[in-house]
Amino acid sequence: MSVTRRAVIAGSTLALATPFGENVLAQATTPSTAPSGGSRQAPGFYRYKVGDIEVTAINDGFAKRPLEGFIKNAELAQVQEAMKEAYLPADALAITFTTLVLNRNGKLTLIDVGNGDLGAPTSGTWMANFRAAGFDPSQVETIVISHFHGDHINGLRLKDGTVVFPNAEVTVPAAEWAFWMDDARMNQAPESMKGAFQNVRRVFAPITKDVKRFEADKEVAPGLTAIATPGHTPGHTSFLLSSGSGKLLVMSDVTNHPALFVRNPDWSAIFDMDADLARQTRHRMLDLAATERAQVSFYHAPFPATGYIAKEGSKFRLVPVQWTSAV
Amino acid sequence: MSVTRRAVIAGSTLALATPFGENVLAQATTPSTAPSGGSRQAPGFYRYKVGDIEVTAINDGFAKRPLEGFIKNAELAQVQEAMKEAYLPADALAITFTTLVLNRNGKLTLIDVGNGDLGAPTSGTWMANFRAAGFDPSQVETIVISHFHGDHINGLRLKDGTVVFPNAEVTVPAAEWAFWMDDARMNQAPESMKGAFQNVRRVFAPITKDVKRFEADKEVAPGLTAIATPGHTPGHTSFLLSSGSGKLLVMSDVTNHPALFVRNPDWSAIFDMDADLARQTRHRMLDLAATERAQVSFYHAPFPATGYIAKEGSKFRLVPVQWTSAV
Repeated sequence: MSVTRRAVIAGSTLALATPFGENVLAQATTPSTAPSGGSRQAPGFYRYKVGDIEVTAINDGFAKRPLEGFIKNAELAQVQEAMKEAYLPADALAITFTTLVLNRNGKLTLIDVGNGDLGAPTSGTWMANFRAAGFDPSQVETIVISHFHGDHINGLRLKDGTVVFPNAEVTVPAAEWAFWMDDARMNQAPESMKGAFQNVRRVFAPITKDVKRFEADKEVAPGLTAIATPGHTPGHTSFLLSSGSGKLLVMSDVTNHPALFVRNPDWSAIFDMDADLARQTRHRMLDLAATERAQVSFYHAPFPATGYIAKEGSKFRLVPVQWTSAV
Repeated sequence: MSVTRRAVIAGSTLALATPFGENVLAQATTPSTAPSGGSRQAPGFYRYKVGDIEVTAINDGFAKRPLEGFIKNAELAQVQEAMKEAYLPADALAITFTTLVLNRNGKLTLIDVGNGDLGAPTSGTWMANFRAAGFDPSQVETIVISHFHGDHINGLRLKDGTVVFPNAEVTVPAAEWAFWMDDARMNQAPESMKGAFQNVRRVFAPITKDVKRFEADKEVAPGLTAIATPGHTPGHTSFLLSSGSGKLLVMSDVTNHPALFVRNPDWSAIFDMDADLARQTRHRMLDLAATERAQVSFYHAPFPATGYIAKEGSKFRLVPVQWTSAV
């Protein structure tokens, strides 16, 4: 096997100088020259059952961001080490977006709706994947929103004003609505946050009087119970989906990328508006998921963004489900 | 949050009595009643780049087998514990099949071809996935075979005799050919193995004189070097795919399901014809992959069947790649 070992090492000077994983993202911008196969990725949807409810995870692509300045309370070297442990590139993080379609006897409920046409150029794949999964926006009856960050709500309304889901009832966390729709609060907000307030108004303006608001611990759609998980935003909400013996803990943004924040639940991403509260919430929800051995989904977990939470000392690990061809 | 905790626990008596993961497989046989979305899984192909070569993993479904009697040198309780650690069901293992298409400037090479129409009813999805990825069997120029077990070669020739890849050159490990095509050896083989010998003859009969045979450490297709990894079968072969700084260690059946045999490399599946040699080979290849931080693929790893090998004491762990919408 010395020949093989030499072969592996010989060509890999570059690969060892930069982590292997880095190639994955570098290649994302290299157009494929292959004439066969079309070179497109498979459609980004994945179906699984939770009791009688068929869940379809819909991927909305990804956005890359530098690791510098992303985590408030960790050194860059620590963050790079966590990336290396997960075989991810050390220079940038690809944050992915995955929403859920709940199909219960043909009645469709969405949890969050992705970036629409206002995200990074590598995002915005949601509608193609939603259609590839056999759905049409006009079929959607209910849309449940976890919180009001743009990557969760912009899919409701395009840049040109188009309302994307003409027949859907939109329901949102009451605490989230109270916070973001408060004009006094918007006017007092630091300049860097004004855009977020304005975007909430842009999205909800055409439907303001029709938007439903829900409280925590209430059933917001059949089998779907809201769980107050504040910190990331004031009204940030997770959900328990329950049908028969099937359970799914929809974690929303209780963590950003699991390789960083499930693994290191004390770390605070800059997106967490109240870092201390978000950290308490994160520990509570990860402990719950680990203790119950409950299936979970995270909005920013690698697609298909569902698995289980294993506790390992003071850390946790997301164990992805085994992909199956049988729904 | 007591409400939520109660809600999780209240409905989950059944789920706690049987591991959560069990539901996934149980549901595989439950036809979906949902009228929207068609309820089919997304096509089982996944593309990634290794240097200039575009790799497409093609899933051929799965076969379930009981855990009893599967591992020669582990107690059932130990095996069930390993399944639990991986959040997999404790009663049966879904063994998946994933082949590779290598696309180099439009020239297609396959590594193994799946079960054809002779596998379990839950397998046989290969051709649909291959076509969904934009390929046609007539385009295939080269087929490289890792070893002669039916789930790797039966896709070459259907039950009715049809040759599936009419324009492909088929190349196989010389040591594998020498073993399985030896009539004296077939006649001396125990009754339980005669079917495997006969199946090899069934598959290769129409093309016997055209089949190429390769030796280890030789380049069998551009960028693809054979690595002798005997034990699973006498001529079992892995491969190093190399292009530019890109590397992929194609492990073939150096392990069966990673949750069992990457995690516990000393365990011997009943499919390993020479258990001791297979164990030595397994350690050597896992050590190589871990040391080099090389991307790997396994035929029986959960789709898309590619990731990295982390060494953890005397155990290993397969860390799956992060799915990406950008090829």
